[in-house]
Amino acid sequence: MTDPATLTAGAAADAIAAGRLTSEALVRACLARIAARDGAVRAWAFLDPDLALAAARAADRSAPLGPLHGVPVGLKDVIDTFDMPTAQGSPVWAGRRPRADAAAAALIRAAGGIILGKTVTTEFANRHPGPTRHPLAPAHTPGGSSSGSAAAVADFQVPLALATQTGGSTIRPAAFCGVLGYKPSFGEMSRVGVLLQAGSLDTLGLVARDIGDLARLRAVLLRLPHEPVAAPASPPRLALCRTPQWDRAGDATRDALEDAARRLAAAGAKLADLTLPPALFGDWPATHRRIAGFECARNLAHERHLHRAALSRDLAEGWIRDGEALPLADYAAAQRRAEAMREWADDALAPFDAVLTPAAPGEAPEGLGDTGDSVFNALWTLLGTPCLTLPCGTGPAGLPLGLQLAAARHEDERLFATAGWVRRILPG
Amino acid sequence: MTDPATLTAGAAADAIAAGRLTSEALVRACLARIAARDGAVRAWAFLDPDLALAAARAADRSAPLGPLHGVPVGLKDVIDTFDMPTAQGSPVWAGRRPRADAAAAALIRAAGGIILGKTVTTEFANRHPGPTRHPLAPAHTPGGSSSGSAAAVADFQVPLALATQTGGSTIRPAAFCGVLGYKPSFGEMSRVGVLLQAGSLDTLGLVARDIGDLARLRAVLLRLPHEPVAAPASPPRLALCRTPQWDRAGDATRDALEDAARRLAAAGAKLADLTLPPALFGDWPATHRRIAGFECARNLAHERHLHRAALSRDLAEGWIRDGEALPLADYAAAQRRAEAMREWADDALAPFDAVLTPAAPGEAPEGLGDTGDSVFNALWTLLGTPCLTLPCGTGPAGLPLGLQLAAARHEDERLFATAGWVRRILPG
Repeated sequence: MTDPATLTAGAAADAIAAGRLTSEALVRACLARIAARDGAVRAWAFLDPDLALAAARAADRSAPLGPLHGVPVGLKDVIDTFDMPTAQGSPVWAGRRPRADAAAAALIRAAGGIILGKTVTTEFANRHPGPTRHPLAPAHTPGGSSSGSAAAVADFQVPLALATQTGGSTIRPAAFCGVLGYKPSFGEMSRVGVLLQAGSLDTLGLVARDIGDLARLRAVLLRLPHEPVAAPASPPRLALCRTPQWDRAGDATRDALEDAARRLAAAGAKLADLTLPPALFGDWPATHRRIAGFECARNLAHERHLHRAALSRDLAEGWIRDGEALPLADYAAAQRRAEAMREWADDALAPFDAVLTPAAPGEAPEGLGDTGDSVFNALWTLLGTPCLTLPCGTGPAGLPLGLQLAAARHEDERLFATAGWVRRILPG
Repeated sequence: MTDPATLTAGAAADAIAAGRLTSEALVRACLARIAARDGAVRAWAFLDPDLALAAARAADRSAPLGPLHGVPVGLKDVIDTFDMPTAQGSPVWAGRRPRADAAAAALIRAAGGIILGKTVTTEFANRHPGPTRHPLAPAHTPGGSSSGSAAAVADFQVPLALATQTGGSTIRPAAFCGVLGYKPSFGEMSRVGVLLQAGSLDTLGLVARDIGDLARLRAVLLRLPHEPVAAPASPPRLALCRTPQWDRAGDATRDALEDAARRLAAAGAKLADLTLPPALFGDWPATHRRIAGFECARNLAHERHLHRAALSRDLAEGWIRDGEALPLADYAAAQRRAEAMREWADDALAPFDAVLTPAAPGEAPEGLGDTGDSVFNALWTLLGTPCLTLPCGTGPAGLPLGLQLAAARHEDERLFATAGWVRRILPG
């Protein structure tokens, strides 16, 4: 018999609905996998097997609530839960128990989902790493900041996990770990009860091993009816975007992206190049960093003033120091520049079903002191576009590479349809 | 001797810095005023005199921390404080004690300010009123949703208060109560630890009896050096904007606005009319409502699913029901429309130092079942512009009217300079 822990969320939900599987058996299988593997992977910040099993048994006794009925979901430990601590990756908040669920957690429970536990985040979803290791290569980073969510899904410890993204915190770890990651259009999903790092940039992120699972979780989080991912009526129009940072991509990434584009064109996709105008996009990394730093420094005011000694040097001497030093006029100028970039992107992306672009400079780098470079992610976060990464080959160390697809803002459904088509051509 | 409770925050801070006043004496004076008046006004959701006095005595013992040293501030009860409950105007969260300060509360404390207590909000900063009454006319609403903040400042119970605005929740109650209110440019001030009603619209709001006090509190909340409000180099360029809803303004409001414009022109202001193009702005109220409703319905997911019976009918049958029924495509279309309006406004407002427009249809209406109409506020909230209301004459019942000034996004400092000039011509 198949190990239930290896099922997709959709297959598990179907099996539970049909009476072929219980939520309890599924959760037990995930817990067994975690027990066997988490000493090496360390994806979980909080896990109470009895609590998860009690929720699973309650689901087994209950009428079907929704498309996640009985299915376990991991939550990045910056997302509040009323029945589990949420420590935000910081000793400041060790053991902190919020009174309310984040809206996302409440929507998952309302759809029948089981909150399995909380996954490791970097400190305050910023740069300072947590203990998680790459499931395939323990000397390598799993990426961050959503380290535990990506590693747990990749390692078959849970079929679905919630993440967040301010720079590249969902797409990069998903790509490193060889799973699918999705960052929704800015603004669509509620951030209530989610650590706010930079209000102008933050979104939730979704991690799964299957595109249908991402769509299922997206419907739950938007409180929309769950529908299968549509197949496009005709092969998609795609744009290859190397971004101004193409020289930061490794050879394997460049080859994988260009090879993917050739294979998709051979399968019928219409392919064009998309070049970002240098006058508008030349300083996009500084624009992103100014907005993120200015906001992050103020958002962490409580921690900065009452718990300064408990902050990592990475954070205190990084974004907080830079953000506090930035003049308001420079922040406002960065906001204006970002809006101009978004206006340009709205027009430039409209003719395409998706943009193809790297998910990261390469495979997960060796070393646990740094979660990798978000240079191929933060641009799209700044633009507010939906992004989705698919596994796409491997790098020189044999670790996964990611192919990132982005689309015009609020074209998330078109992005899913396109990604489904791409995945049939390039199954990974 | 002057009652310290009647001092502006600036005068009080100066007197404390000079050793002419103690924070304890100031806080005692505010508490005495509250004890005498709050039975009638009911502005406070939580007040612990001993806690406030302990903070005041600590300030009196401490070296000066910043521009609010020893000065009490009221916080709308949707803004978290680690040492006081934050109930969000709902029985769901009666007695809820957050573990952390909101960033705004932490920044006030770091600048030496005393959190005096929590002021009454409507339920979840939405429409359902709390118990607060108009300080000058107890049968009239003080406005909402920041009812207690506006009433407490107007009634000399505290010199400064924090509010929030999603539609008209700062500007309208400030205008009704005859005080100054300021809504900053969208995005500039941290919302960490503040109830999120609609992430695309919410900002903090500031309430005071003096324009310099608003500027002082703004500097603290942005972590900027505090500087006096600059005087403009020359009389300002002003635009009179009647908005498409001019027919909803009462005669007294129309007369007051047009009279103010004449007097400002006579004092040297260059005056023009600003007309919003009907094709773009014809449906702005629906655009605002769609965005607010879609987001509010999801943001309250925890309360909706676990505490449905404790929600008011106003809320459950209003924004939540409408927001849940709205298709995602309509929400996305509303977001696109709002962005087009903002682009137009960025250009149209740039030549002007400020727009003159009503703060409300008229004076505070009689009746406590409704906090009044936000039709002259929600447009500017949707546009993300900074807004500031100044008292400007009275209506037929003898209650205050407000003159609202708005400016282009991120031109908050220019707005303050212009408002200072206007206030010297029109002292109220």
